[in-house]
Amino acid sequence: MRLKRTLLTTGLMTALAATAAFAQETAPAVEAAPEAAEAAIDVNFYVFNTLLFFLGGILVMWMAAGFTMLEAGLVRSKNVSMQCLKNISLYSLGVLMYWVIGYNLMYTGVDGGWFGSLGLMSFPDPASDTGDYSLATDFFYQSMFCATAASIVSGTVAERVRIWPFLLFVAILCGVFYPITGSWQWGGGWLSEAGFSDFAGSTLVHSVGGWAALTGALIIGARRGRYGADGRVVAMPGSSIPLATLGAFILWFGWFGFNGASQLALGTLEDAASVGRVVVNTNTAAAAGVLVSMVLMQVLYKKVDVTMALNGALGGLVAITAEPLTPTFLSAAVIGGIGAALVVFTVPLLDKLKIDDVVGAIPVHLVAGIWGTLAVPFTNPDTNFGSQITGIVAVGAFTVVATGIAWFVIKAVIGLRPTEEEEALGLDRSEVGVEAYPEFSSTRI
Amino acid sequence: MRLKRTLLTTGLMTALAATAAFAQETAPAVEAAPEAAEAAIDVNFYVFNTLLFFLGGILVMWMAAGFTMLEAGLVRSKNVSMQCLKNISLYSLGVLMYWVIGYNLMYTGVDGGWFGSLGLMSFPDPASDTGDYSLATDFFYQSMFCATAASIVSGTVAERVRIWPFLLFVAILCGVFYPITGSWQWGGGWLSEAGFSDFAGSTLVHSVGGWAALTGALIIGARRGRYGADGRVVAMPGSSIPLATLGAFILWFGWFGFNGASQLALGTLEDAASVGRVVVNTNTAAAAGVLVSMVLMQVLYKKVDVTMALNGALGGLVAITAEPLTPTFLSAAVIGGIGAALVVFTVPLLDKLKIDDVVGAIPVHLVAGIWGTLAVPFTNPDTNFGSQITGIVAVGAFTVVATGIAWFVIKAVIGLRPTEEEEALGLDRSEVGVEAYPEFSSTRI
Amino acid sequence: MRLKRTLLTTGLMTALAATAAFAQETAPAVEAAPEAAEAAIDVNFYVFNTLLFFLGGILVMWMAAGFTMLEAGLVRSKNVSMQCLKNISLYSLGVLMYWVIGYNLMYTGVDGGWFGSLGLMSFPDPASDTGDYSLATDFFYQSMFCATAASIVSGTVAERVRIWPFLLFVAILCGVFYPITGSWQWGGGWLSEAGFSDFAGSTLVHSVGGWAALTGALIIGARRGRYGADGRVVAMPGSSIPLATLGAFILWFGWFGFNGASQLALGTLEDAASVGRVVVNTNTAAAAGVLVSMVLMQVLYKKVDVTMALNGALGGLVAITAEPLTPTFLSAAVIGGIGAALVVFTVPLLDKLKIDDVVGAIPVHLVAGIWGTLAVPFTNPDTNFGSQITGIVAVGAFTVVATGIAWFVIKAVIGLRPTEEEEALGLDRSEVGVEAYPEFSSTRI
Repeated sequence: MRLKRTLLTTGLMTALAATAAFAQETAPAVEAAPEAAEAAIDVNFYVFNTLLFFLGGILVMWMAAGFTMLEAGLVRSKNVSMQCLKNISLYSLGVLMYWVIGYNLMYTGVDGGWFGSLGLMSFPDPASDTGDYSLATDFFYQSMFCATAASIVSGTVAERVRIWPFLLFVAILCGVFYPITGSWQWGGGWLSEAGFSDFAGSTLVHSVGGWAALTGALIIGARRGRYGADGRVVAMPGSSIPLATLGAFILWFGWFGFNGASQLALGTLEDAASVGRVVVNTNTAAAAGVLVSMVLMQVLYKKVDVTMALNGALGGLVAITAEPLTPTFLSAAVIGGIGAALVVFTVPLLDKLKIDDVVGAIPVHLVAGIWGTLAVPFTNPDTNFGSQITGIVAVGAFTVVATGIAWFVIKAVIGLRPTEEEEALGLDRSEVGVEAYPEFSSTRI
Repeated sequence: MRLKRTLLTTGLMTALAATAAFAQETAPAVEAAPEAAEAAIDVNFYVFNTLLFFLGGILVMWMAAGFTMLEAGLVRSKNVSMQCLKNISLYSLGVLMYWVIGYNLMYTGVDGGWFGSLGLMSFPDPASDTGDYSLATDFFYQSMFCATAASIVSGTVAERVRIWPFLLFVAILCGVFYPITGSWQWGGGWLSEAGFSDFAGSTLVHSVGGWAALTGALIIGARRGRYGADGRVVAMPGSSIPLATLGAFILWFGWFGFNGASQLALGTLEDAASVGRVVVNTNTAAAAGVLVSMVLMQVLYKKVDVTMALNGALGGLVAITAEPLTPTFLSAAVIGGIGAALVVFTVPLLDKLKIDDVVGAIPVHLVAGIWGTLAVPFTNPDTNFGSQITGIVAVGAFTVVATGIAWFVIKAVIGLRPTEEEEALGLDRSEVGVEAYPEFSSTRI
Repeated sequence: MRLKRTLLTTGLMTALAATAAFAQETAPAVEAAPEAAEAAIDVNFYVFNTLLFFLGGILVMWMAAGFTMLEAGLVRSKNVSMQCLKNISLYSLGVLMYWVIGYNLMYTGVDGGWFGSLGLMSFPDPASDTGDYSLATDFFYQSMFCATAASIVSGTVAERVRIWPFLLFVAILCGVFYPITGSWQWGGGWLSEAGFSDFAGSTLVHSVGGWAALTGALIIGARRGRYGADGRVVAMPGSSIPLATLGAFILWFGWFGFNGASQLALGTLEDAASVGRVVVNTNTAAAAGVLVSMVLMQVLYKKVDVTMALNGALGGLVAITAEPLTPTFLSAAVIGGIGAALVVFTVPLLDKLKIDDVVGAIPVHLVAGIWGTLAVPFTNPDTNFGSQITGIVAVGAFTVVATGIAWFVIKAVIGLRPTEEEEALGLDRSEVGVEAYPEFSSTRI
């Protein structure tokens, strides 16, 4: 079949050479016919690519629901409404900020530099929608990635941040910080010229979200009562395991769009085949992540904590995201499995450091994201460890400094945390005014 | 890759130009080759369009789950099983009635008139599946819209209607009323000839559902105890905010199919580009709706009720549904934001009028639907306010009268409401025989 | 628009006609041009088919979330975390085992025989990805079906099996048993040559899962306390009806991929039209299933148990799965309705036989699966009852014996059940270490 294609191509070239020679004799020629043929080919190419962005975009949008369910299930019932509110509003604000500022900052006129255009809302004219795909679906798809980065943060800093200061941070992250580091690589900036490789965003999306979550956790501090004076960690179990499980399944499902559509084209045989391989590798890495985390939990703790199995799946998914195309299935399983193992070992480590990460987003998105980015050269010969480390460090350093300053300034100027009474009462009552489970939760609040 | 494609295209163009010139010399021509080419083009066109209906159809079907979760989360726990039952059964009955009666009534032989064919189950022969798309997927897609209209009703009249009378109403709505007003416009009836414009159904789907919900709320009456003798509104908070949030996310996700596939074709560059713009405008309107409702809640009430943020998203979505193609992103944000603002102001208004709308479906689907339909001429120069008002009034008048009579007759003949004891006990026990949360909810029932 | 397309087509036709005429004169030379056209067609064919496998695969993957929610909602709260863990891990293990052993055993070199290749992980080289579709997406799609079969088992044997013995069974089922019977038919084995017909797996997937669930229920035994000494059945109501409803909706939604993509091709007009008819028939059968089960419940029990409506939908879906293409819509409704009726009658029958099927998976997947397979010749003239019965009996006999031995050996060697104390305490505490609803469920545990 491969052979057949080669023959076809060779044959086509021969035929074209023959007819081109003939064309030199019969001078003028009609213009309409070839344009028709070209148009037919271009239309299919355009529609397929647009369809990929559409499918990928809605699947990643759906991941916002996944983060919401995961986080709503992992916080205590007194903060569930707040977590729902935070997630739907961060998504909304994130995509709007990305439209107003972010997209052009990330993609327009970067040219090897450090950021793109500062034009507000200067989105390309729809009339120019005649390239290889619909510009609107491309924008849609990219804006979903931006919102994903913000979703990561909300899980870590749950149960102890007021809504409006949090949204202010989201606006800055999605409007400015995420697009800047994104422009370095996906916008064609300096990092892409340095040979860095990040297929769907282990570093550019997940680690950025993870770093922002880490600085947030450090500057905001832990939930009151989380770390006892005697160094003991007080368990604060999540309110609904099935909702958390649903969230993990939604994320896994959406990840087929996150990674699959990051091929950025579907209109050729090679592109479609690549999307297929990306999908299988993504699934395999996640599946391996689940099993590795379960075995480790059984061995280490004699019980199989289901939340760790969920985070194992997510750790596998994050790890494969930097390069889901070149690995064999076996390599994908190994990359995902190691990602999950890192999650299992990092979760207690954070608690030892008294870094309070409510849902485990830092192990999943930051640690597994770094691992996945580092692992790219094992399977992709066009990359090298030096460039990968450069990207990890540069993106990390910028995001830590920038988000650290942002959290710090917001804290200083308008404050981040609710009062002790409000936090004890739960943010659902103090800020949202709506209890998540008004008929059930009274006993323990 | 890109380069290779360009070379091939260029070569192909040259070759075809040459042969086209040659064709002027050599007269007659072979017929097989062109037919093959034409067939190839037609096949792609057909498959793309069919794929759009397939994707759109399953996405709108998924919205049935969204309404179910939204409503299950917003009713009290003693009526949750009933709400689940109502939603899965109204969807089932709705699509069956639309097949038995509705589809032909809406789409066959309307010809500028007031309704179509009365033939039962006379669905087109699959053998005629050789147009521009699969007739079955077109039918599938349209039947989903019919079910959506019925879903809207169930939310408003929740907690106080028995299952079988409710389903009888659904059968009439989906089999007769919805298809009649639908035929006026989408079936090519008089309203379409009057210049009315409703891209994906702000009026034909959402307002129809909203009007039917309003007449239902008026004729059925409020939940017992909802409005105190002193004019006080008794809060009856929903049982699960995360389920309601999940429902809103599902609806948002499904709306990409609801609006996107209402372009009704994908097989050309223009169609694909239009789907792309529709998707972004849909998302932007919803995102703006969330933020506008949140800011208004903060300003008016000092707390950010998450259920209002959810309804803000839905209000934005309904508002943009009448015309998601022509607005700029900024216009889409404004249209969606105003839709959400109308929701925020209408919800308390209904309570003042003692119209008991359990989930806020009337503000979301009726009020925002009217607004969205009215707003079309602001961005679409081929429309005018007169025609839009004509459509809103005509569809509204018919639906109010028709559904009013239906509710009234059902009430008179078999009754609509459970007894006072049954309503107090909850419909889950009195009608379904299954409690939604048997291990948790005993304390407050 | 349409006009423009016609003009383009005409132009292309003219050009190609000229080329063809020219080819007749200049004899050998120009074989290439039509081949170029052929290549263009092949690319579209490949991309469409690959896209179908991609869409179908992710939709069926999403069904894993559906099974999880359905089962999490139907078990008691003390076993909900375990049910979540079992489902995400059985999916993960299932797809990995199918990759390591199953796929080749099912699809490679069966040639009319009883099983395929025993090569481990010998997945086709991605470089051979040049057939009619991406091999990776085909593998992905098939692996999802394998995981579905395992999901069916977990529902029946819920609340009384330890996690690791259960996963050991899943590994054998997905790695060996499912692929063997699958190879008989879909792998081109003896059963396919015997004229058996099973479009999307009423027998090969659902009955296989159902038989495995039945042998499991028999060998494991009922939940302690389920059947009183006096023959009374002790009700053990599920913990969350809305989650169960969500699960049913997810399954219904995913079934559009399960059945629709089982057409296995999308790239021709006939294929796309077939996918469309499959989708409508699938939806119609499920809708009829809901209504039939509701009417029967009302007549038989005077209450409409929502869980039976959900299982009615699933029974209708399973029944139509053996042949969703050839029935008319009316036939599809009848097939689905009978499937649901069988569920309604079989559920109490199992309890009389003291076979403890927690979620009703045996009636839904086994009984309705047999019915659907038997019903194929009613609408598909290319099939006959003899061959259908042969397939049902052969697959059933093999699966009963094989899974019976597997359950028995696992029981004998490492044991299947938790201790009486552990079962009373709930598996969430004894095995998972995480309660599903830690703030709510204490009162009744």
